[in-house]
Amino acid sequence: MTTYEKTEAICRAAKAASKNLAILNTKSKNQVLEKIAEKLKIKCDEIISENKKDLINAKKNGIPAPMLDRLMLNKERIDGIRDSLVSLIKLPDPIGSGSVTTTACGLEICCEKVPLGVVAMIYEARPNVTVDAAALCIKTGNAVVLRGGKEAIFTNLALVCAMKEALSECNISPDVLGFIEPGQGHESANALMSMKDCVDVLIPRGSKRLIEAVVKNSKVPTIETGAGNCHLYVDSSADLDMALSVAINAKCSRPAVCNAIETLLVHSDVADKFLKNFKAATESKYGLELRGCERTLAILPGIKEATEEDYKTEYDDMILAVKIVDSTDEAIEHINKYSTGHSEAIITNSAKDAQKFRSMVDSAAVYVNASTRFTDGGEFGFGAEIGISTQKLHARGPMGVDALTTQKYLITGEGQIR
Amino acid sequence: MTTYEKTEAICRAAKAASKNLAILNTKSKNQVLEKIAEKLKIKCDEIISENKKDLINAKKNGIPAPMLDRLMLNKERIDGIRDSLVSLIKLPDPIGSGSVTTTACGLEICCEKVPLGVVAMIYEARPNVTVDAAALCIKTGNAVVLRGGKEAIFTNLALVCAMKEALSECNISPDVLGFIEPGQGHESANALMSMKDCVDVLIPRGSKRLIEAVVKNSKVPTIETGAGNCHLYVDSSADLDMALSVAINAKCSRPAVCNAIETLLVHSDVADKFLKNFKAATESKYGLELRGCERTLAILPGIKEATEEDYKTEYDDMILAVKIVDSTDEAIEHINKYSTGHSEAIITNSAKDAQKFRSMVDSAAVYVNASTRFTDGGEFGFGAEIGISTQKLHARGPMGVDALTTQKYLITGEGQIR
Repeated sequence: MTTYEKTEAICRAAKAASKNLAILNTKSKNQVLEKIAEKLKIKCDEIISENKKDLINAKKNGIPAPMLDRLMLNKERIDGIRDSLVSLIKLPDPIGSGSVTTTACGLEICCEKVPLGVVAMIYEARPNVTVDAAALCIKTGNAVVLRGGKEAIFTNLALVCAMKEALSECNISPDVLGFIEPGQGHESANALMSMKDCVDVLIPRGSKRLIEAVVKNSKVPTIETGAGNCHLYVDSSADLDMALSVAINAKCSRPAVCNAIETLLVHSDVADKFLKNFKAATESKYGLELRGCERTLAILPGIKEATEEDYKTEYDDMILAVKIVDSTDEAIEHINKYSTGHSEAIITNSAKDAQKFRSMVDSAAVYVNASTRFTDGGEFGFGAEIGISTQKLHARGPMGVDALTTQKYLITGEGQIR
Repeated sequence: MTTYEKTEAICRAAKAASKNLAILNTKSKNQVLEKIAEKLKIKCDEIISENKKDLINAKKNGIPAPMLDRLMLNKERIDGIRDSLVSLIKLPDPIGSGSVTTTACGLEICCEKVPLGVVAMIYEARPNVTVDAAALCIKTGNAVVLRGGKEAIFTNLALVCAMKEALSECNISPDVLGFIEPGQGHESANALMSMKDCVDVLIPRGSKRLIEAVVKNSKVPTIETGAGNCHLYVDSSADLDMALSVAINAKCSRPAVCNAIETLLVHSDVADKFLKNFKAATESKYGLELRGCERTLAILPGIKEATEEDYKTEYDDMILAVKIVDSTDEAIEHINKYSTGHSEAIITNSAKDAQKFRSMVDSAAVYVNASTRFTDGGEFGFGAEIGISTQKLHARGPMGVDALTTQKYLITGEGQIR
């Protein structure tokens, strides 16, 4: 069998099996999630030992440290995945909820939330995504087809095997969880992107390059996730201690994640004091490299000049662009020009500027006096997330169970004609 | 200026003006709609006389009769458009509605409905779409860019001019309503499809060919609308009088619209009686041409045989494919194989078959004992519709005001960091 044929067989089987999953009641779906949590506990050592194989290969292949960290599973992290499952079990099931109206001619029109059908995902090295995605799909009655990165192949196979066992023991076809082995090159990803007859949505999750390639080439409808060129704006009325603490957190706590900031905008009235303090607090402690506009350079001589390219860049690294602006309007304009529409924050004591920022910044999450790092399904109370949408259609921001549903109009009559 | 430059200027102006429209309150937006209704009344004769120019040109160019009918405006039809505006004014405004939660660390997270920004539409000859689309967009705080067909150019310019006057008199920039002159060929449509920096969604509405071309080529996110290969299934337990009345209505009342049926599926137990009656009722009265499967041909000798191609075809004409099946399961399988996911109906007295059909048929609207012709924004109580989505993401079925919104998370804190 070719890669294309293998992929097609997995997707077709998922589509066929999805029909029975779609009509399961909430209790039965939660039982599957409980069984998966149980299996992960029982098979914890086995999963960790498979994960070690991936780690050894990754080190051999010279994979950088942050990626090794993402790849690594230990007992604590597996417990964390099980905690996510428990949160998800507790969440309400959106499927079957809806509203009913009766028309003048007596037709009953019910708009009901239903599963999408088959959800596919192309992602990279984080093995927790394997369980999160499968669990969110099962909770919402969707079959799922996963294509994880080759770096995590042993771990993913162990996790998928555990989950398929759980499905079988609950008398559900294990075909509802398809796993496409990554193989070499892009063959399996390309095959998955062409399965528009049996896959209802394809969600890419990972690097900007991966996401762009999938959105551009997929024949299956996609949801764009994760590109995060995020901004923090320190207004003239800001509490500068708060601004310092939030700015450090938003950049330095985890610089490589999508909700970390990439550009700091500072009002000219407070720029001198704030920027000197910020540099002092981050240069030696975090090794943060600043790149500034001309006016920033006058305050912080010796730092590199920020180019147009810098403002467009999601560094995902200990680098931050800095720009001095003269008003909230100018900050908003900069953000709407360069942002990827993920998360932006203002630190201000002015209710008027806060309101302007909230209404005029065109991004999924807009913060007043808090760190952008909170943009996350778990933090937002969604149990788990299948990604963070940076598009406006269908879903925007962290995607939980609702993003995995569509609607169906069910109309009941007594022979009405129009 | 080239067509591209003209299109870009109109889209950029719409994007800039959209910011102020987005923050208007419901009362102000409804005032604009009232003013538009008033203008249409005052300018009724002028619009009709411009419409006459289009009709004369259309006749000269040999445009078929059903299209001439779609193009034609008279006082009654303009009153109908004004009635739609009145319904829309009465509908609740989704913008600003939402839900608020507070997290353990005290962050207030508000998920609020907000406008998409700039909504563009490429459509054909129906001038009521010009007003419906603009009104739905204004109601939801969206700027709109319209590119109507060249057959309706004089009518559209008159309607757009009336609406721009209404906007100006309400002190709103007329740039929120952009109109792209169709010109010759596809140049202006192609230009609009490339405006991803200033257009948030592009909705094609019209022929299958138009919709497919836009969905395939657009760089702006699209919503697929209107392709309607719809089915009616007459079950063995059906009330055959009801089935006859619904089948005639679903095909013959307006064969060229998207919610008309294209294939009739009949259970073998009732096929002989039902099909003979159906043919007798439709052949001479409506001139309906039937194309049947082999078993149908045995009952109705002399009709043309239906091919695989027939089952795939949206005739939009007085032609209907007929297939005899042995069970509701077989009917569902046929529908899920050939349908475009628009509207399907079952006529049955079996609660079990009705339930199976509702849950297993994967289409936007699923009817039990009623005609598919009801799939329409007006019939569903949406005031007007901007199209009928046949995709699963973002919107499915008739699209009213909710389909023109996205969401934004507004988070308020007191310096929280993660």
